[in-house]
Amino acid sequence: MDVGEGKDLEFVKNKAIDVGAIKSYSVDAKQLFAEDFVLPALHANVMYEDKYPLVSALSRPLIAKVLVDIAEKEGAVAVAHGCTGKGNDQVRFDVAFTSLNPNLKIVAPVREWKMTRDEEIKYAQANGIPIPIDLDSPYSVDQNLWGGRANECGILEDPWAEAPEDAFELTTNPIDAPDEPEIIEIEFKQGKPVAIDGKEYPLHELILELNHIAGKHGVGRIDHVENRLVGIKSREIYEAPAAITLINAHREIETLTLPREVSKFKPVVEQQLEQAIYDGLWFTQLTDALKAFITETQKYVNGVARVKLYKGQAFVIGRKSENSLYDLDLATYNKGDQFDHDAALGFIKLWGGLPTKVHSTVNNVHADKAKIMKKTKIDMKESVKQ
Amino acid sequence: MDVGEGKDLEFVKNKAIDVGAIKSYSVDAKQLFAEDFVLPALHANVMYEDKYPLVSALSRPLIAKVLVDIAEKEGAVAVAHGCTGKGNDQVRFDVAFTSLNPNLKIVAPVREWKMTRDEEIKYAQANGIPIPIDLDSPYSVDQNLWGGRANECGILEDPWAEAPEDAFELTTNPIDAPDEPEIIEIEFKQGKPVAIDGKEYPLHELILELNHIAGKHGVGRIDHVENRLVGIKSREIYEAPAAITLINAHREIETLTLPREVSKFKPVVEQQLEQAIYDGLWFTQLTDALKAFITETQKYVNGVARVKLYKGQAFVIGRKSENSLYDLDLATYNKGDQFDHDAALGFIKLWGGLPTKVHSTVNNVHADKAKIMKKTKIDMKESVKQ
Amino acid sequence: MDVGEGKDLEFVKNKAIDVGAIKSYSVDAKQLFAEDFVLPALHANVMYEDKYPLVSALSRPLIAKVLVDIAEKEGAVAVAHGCTGKGNDQVRFDVAFTSLNPNLKIVAPVREWKMTRDEEIKYAQANGIPIPIDLDSPYSVDQNLWGGRANECGILEDPWAEAPEDAFELTTNPIDAPDEPEIIEIEFKQGKPVAIDGKEYPLHELILELNHIAGKHGVGRIDHVENRLVGIKSREIYEAPAAITLINAHREIETLTLPREVSKFKPVVEQQLEQAIYDGLWFTQLTDALKAFITETQKYVNGVARVKLYKGQAFVIGRKSENSLYDLDLATYNKGDQFDHDAALGFIKLWGGLPTKVHSTVNNVHADKAKIMKKTKIDMKESVKQ
Amino acid sequence: MDVGEGKDLEFVKNKAIDVGAIKSYSVDAKQLFAEDFVLPALHANVMYEDKYPLVSALSRPLIAKVLVDIAEKEGAVAVAHGCTGKGNDQVRFDVAFTSLNPNLKIVAPVREWKMTRDEEIKYAQANGIPIPIDLDSPYSVDQNLWGGRANECGILEDPWAEAPEDAFELTTNPIDAPDEPEIIEIEFKQGKPVAIDGKEYPLHELILELNHIAGKHGVGRIDHVENRLVGIKSREIYEAPAAITLINAHREIETLTLPREVSKFKPVVEQQLEQAIYDGLWFTQLTDALKAFITETQKYVNGVARVKLYKGQAFVIGRKSENSLYDLDLATYNKGDQFDHDAALGFIKLWGGLPTKVHSTVNNVHADKAKIMKKTKIDMKESVKQ
Repeated sequence: MDVGEGKDLEFVKNKAIDVGAIKSYSVDAKQLFAEDFVLPALHANVMYEDKYPLVSALSRPLIAKVLVDIAEKEGAVAVAHGCTGKGNDQVRFDVAFTSLNPNLKIVAPVREWKMTRDEEIKYAQANGIPIPIDLDSPYSVDQNLWGGRANECGILEDPWAEAPEDAFELTTNPIDAPDEPEIIEIEFKQGKPVAIDGKEYPLHELILELNHIAGKHGVGRIDHVENRLVGIKSREIYEAPAAITLINAHREIETLTLPREVSKFKPVVEQQLEQAIYDGLWFTQLTDALKAFITETQKYVNGVARVKLYKGQAFVIGRKSENSLYDLDLATYNKGDQFDHDAALGFIKLWGGLPTKVHSTVNNVHADKAKIMKKTKIDMKESVKQ
Repeated sequence: MDVGEGKDLEFVKNKAIDVGAIKSYSVDAKQLFAEDFVLPALHANVMYEDKYPLVSALSRPLIAKVLVDIAEKEGAVAVAHGCTGKGNDQVRFDVAFTSLNPNLKIVAPVREWKMTRDEEIKYAQANGIPIPIDLDSPYSVDQNLWGGRANECGILEDPWAEAPEDAFELTTNPIDAPDEPEIIEIEFKQGKPVAIDGKEYPLHELILELNHIAGKHGVGRIDHVENRLVGIKSREIYEAPAAITLINAHREIETLTLPREVSKFKPVVEQQLEQAIYDGLWFTQLTDALKAFITETQKYVNGVARVKLYKGQAFVIGRKSENSLYDLDLATYNKGDQFDHDAALGFIKLWGGLPTKVHSTVNNVHADKAKIMKKTKIDMKESVKQ
Repeated sequence: MDVGEGKDLEFVKNKAIDVGAIKSYSVDAKQLFAEDFVLPALHANVMYEDKYPLVSALSRPLIAKVLVDIAEKEGAVAVAHGCTGKGNDQVRFDVAFTSLNPNLKIVAPVREWKMTRDEEIKYAQANGIPIPIDLDSPYSVDQNLWGGRANECGILEDPWAEAPEDAFELTTNPIDAPDEPEIIEIEFKQGKPVAIDGKEYPLHELILELNHIAGKHGVGRIDHVENRLVGIKSREIYEAPAAITLINAHREIETLTLPREVSKFKPVVEQQLEQAIYDGLWFTQLTDALKAFITETQKYVNGVARVKLYKGQAFVIGRKSENSLYDLDLATYNKGDQFDHDAALGFIKLWGGLPTKVHSTVNNVHADKAKIMKKTKIDMKESVKQ
Repeated sequence: MDVGEGKDLEFVKNKAIDVGAIKSYSVDAKQLFAEDFVLPALHANVMYEDKYPLVSALSRPLIAKVLVDIAEKEGAVAVAHGCTGKGNDQVRFDVAFTSLNPNLKIVAPVREWKMTRDEEIKYAQANGIPIPIDLDSPYSVDQNLWGGRANECGILEDPWAEAPEDAFELTTNPIDAPDEPEIIEIEFKQGKPVAIDGKEYPLHELILELNHIAGKHGVGRIDHVENRLVGIKSREIYEAPAAITLINAHREIETLTLPREVSKFKPVVEQQLEQAIYDGLWFTQLTDALKAFITETQKYVNGVARVKLYKGQAFVIGRKSENSLYDLDLATYNKGDQFDHDAALGFIKLWGGLPTKVHSTVNNVHADKAKIMKKTKIDMKESVKQ
């Protein structure tokens, strides 16, 4: 299946036949992946542990769905995956399979036989299975159009050591990136990026194009120690040039267009959704309900963000929207100010002043607050008019 | 009062006497500000709306506290501030004053007289009040050791326009920053930064030193459209080199040392705390309770972060801790792996498989999930072994 | 407008004409109120501060909507309400009007003239306005089909004093309620109550019927000290027989049919929704998004609850559903148990055991936990086999 | 160990020796249990899934702590428990043991041998182990001073069937409870109940006394279908007369004394704490941090609640406190009203009116809101002055 990892589909299909499959399917699911899986994640600015835009976790449910569909079409009694017993992906596949068809048996040889990576390679060699990775490179990058991950091993497993340059494929080292910033304009309609610099693209093409543009500037490298679902911490190196750029840009359009109360609660929903996706709970009622909330918030998220790409950063330097709730006449400190300054007094009084006054009068808070000055000395000097 | 804004205290004190005060106090509160206000914010990785490490909002309660203390010492019946009627600071001052001494009258001439910035300047000129700002520069930077803010006016009020270079004081433009990255090591003890590259500093000095180091590399520029407490959106330009660097580093030590459950809930508490501080609720029971939670989480947040400063970024490339919960023997995919692979099956079964199975069997979820494929076509090809 | 308060619509309409209106509308909106306002609240088990099923707060947006529609139809330039300046309803009306038509002027004479209740009554008498309340009774009950509230005054304003019997209209005093319990069965379809004891009703009729049945048994009296939006606490006496009964029953069908993850997060959304409704934010994007979440969760909330009504309580004693996720074969401790006991070990290991082991080994937690025994002595005796 | 279940400690100790133990300890831990485990739960109004005040889950960590202490004192290499492989308690014990001493082996014969309840009984009979339960009664109540649970089996496993009368031990059937209500006054200091009707008790004695008083009136019966940690739903019957009465009373003192912002966020912390306790995470940093938050909130939770006990209900009819934030002069609608009515206008304007106005003007919300009237017809009649 092609979800944008740039695999040679023909090669993969033939490999399956070569090693003994009686039938093989090749599926180009880039568009479906972008529209139905990546877009909801972008709407929710999904960043696992505030750092990593979910990549593998997003493609797993789609792969599971297609696999179950084919299994049912072929009358298969089992589906298989190649995950080990300690990662997150096994959970995501198993739970998705069970959700979609609880009657299918799940076969997971690497987990069942408890193979190490070395043993996997030896098994493949002994059984004539071509291995796509370069054996001289320790990294096997797991990739789709939303980003990639250097599979953990060797040096990457030491969280004190800097990730080596060959762990990255999609991004230039910021030091080697162009010395001139590049400014692009990304347009959003209802939270969906639709154009770069005025040129419209289907979503999956826009993302691939942006991977190229932002990757060139070294944008999107992520070095993260994360909490896995199976109870351990792991150090992961990701790269996601388009994802990081789009999330930054999308957030800025939201700052203009979302009402304050939505801005305050949406992050709570976002955190739930990112955890649900990370944990493999895509095909659940919780995810459906969280997505329903998020979708509703994107109604007016229209506008354009100006993004400066430079040496590893995607910095939004301007944003505009026809649905902007920013109102210059209210915000300005100069003439033409239409803000009602008197209203502020009433607001402060009821919002904070009144409850505070009752509380501090009843409970004599002041005496109590004296303690804050105890720990640390301050240097105070008086000066009196002569 | 000096909270690290680099003001000439002597000048300020004399100015007060010159314009007619009968007594003037000058207070160096940098250490107190760092220990009692900035540190709790750092512990909570406080970033308002995920973007801006609170700067002014942190100093306001301290200023209010000292002012009330002096007012009580002098037997004053009122305290005054110079805020306008549309910003956040008036709320913060008013609520803090009320909390600390509900009997003090609050005088706020700029708000009461509804002065624009031009009128303020004219009033000062007419009354012989020296103005610290350069009248040719439109910006009056409000600054303390945790960062600064270019006061909004003119070009900054257009969220589509890039912030001009003269809006920044603490940070070099990334383009003009050194071409060589600088790597520093920051040590934390119980969540508090105590040393840079092995050299220990009191907290307020460490922050000032880091403002210098990270500012040189252009780290910490922030361009944000934010929701103000008084119901409007405003576009703000901040710079906070030390704050951004320390929050990045602190978060990474936390990824190593916080148990997963703490990692999942602490952000919810952090969001509450940042809102409470932004809203001027420092001297409240809510803030005390939120800080009590946060303090408890910092017990084992010890370790060192290696931070690469380069062209506007503070990127953590390594982190280590004696309290690290990352366990190589569990995380490795190679020999020596001590993870119990069989346990994964039991985990998946009870955690996700069993409830999923019951739900999808009872509610026939699969049929329902078919809808996800409707919208978008996927391209599927079969290939059969000859 | 009739939203179920049992008012004499004809009288109200005539009264308007009599006191000088040139045109008067009477609107029966019971069905609309039940379907579009009460039902979403029931889906979310809305109980403000975990105690009070919002009653007035639900009808205000509907009243505002109809009023604005009529104002626009008539070409009016203003709308009016009779709220005082210290309650919640003024906020709800003002915000709803502004949301629906920001150009309409809002007239609120009682607030503008700062009238006390006594002054209101005098004004009415002086101007020949008939007053519906009995001047001998201090209570004017504000009521709709979802419940009622005795307007605060006199004895009710002392939170230490028990609410007097004449504050209640819809409910029998539990002491005077029937000595025999009554058991009813309420059927839900997608979270909506559709039948009582097998007899189907339109929602608004079902609620009115249930007010009668449950009210007879004294169900639904609420005595609450609540936080008002305008910064003060007030003591309120409510009664809501149908609401309390239906929320109890609905929750029980949810315990059978909601997946665990939904059960864990839905209360967070519910709390937001109840606050939004209480605060008058019905016509906002936040409310729309929260309702979208809630609606999605109700898909499988089908079933029947058996409710025992007795002396002030509506106690659910049985519940069943075709979509029940309760599985006897898994839950039973007897023969036929199909739960995989071995899986538990793997689950415990990865879910809690492994992270706990790493944490307590690294941080030597045990020594630390010794402190828990310090405060309080326990009495421990040894006994040795002879 | 005695945590208030009313067991005959001497009998239990001798039984251990009789069936072959070489040493046996008996521990009276009622006071420790009440002060260190029940009290934090009461402070947090802990009700699992809004229904059940945790009972067993609270005693497990204490039992584990004492067991580990004794194991270490005796130089034991293992600890044992009798839990099955499908309940929550096995997780709680295993995780607590691992937290307190990760080197101790855990022995759990019933889980390892996968015994059903029948097999357990047969094993006991075959090996001369006296069984405390009455074999004619299907229920073995698991009990401590905070409440009890009828062990699930037989009829209780059908969630549609009403719990039979012999499932209850601590509570009278409401129908058989006294016909006269009983009113008691419970005094709290810093969130801790210290006296009933003016008579002071140590906490554990107060709880036991209240179990008696409230149990007599049938208060505290709970019939719940709950989500277990191990992924299944189970139907549980609990009774907790003191717990339900004290939580109701404690909440009412909080309504008087907690500032609004604390009232809004404390439930979120409470939900986390109840989940952490239910899940067996007592000895974790998360629980410590949550408790630190909760403790801070109890500072001013002083006062007296009047509780009417009648036919299964504990209804708070009055509450007072020296720290009450309820202010009659602000709340009253009559003369003497000191609320600033003008402030309301400013408050409404900034809090809700201004953002709403901008939003509805920019996005033309009104047109959109028209849809709410589509579904359901309303009946509107005009009447015009003749």
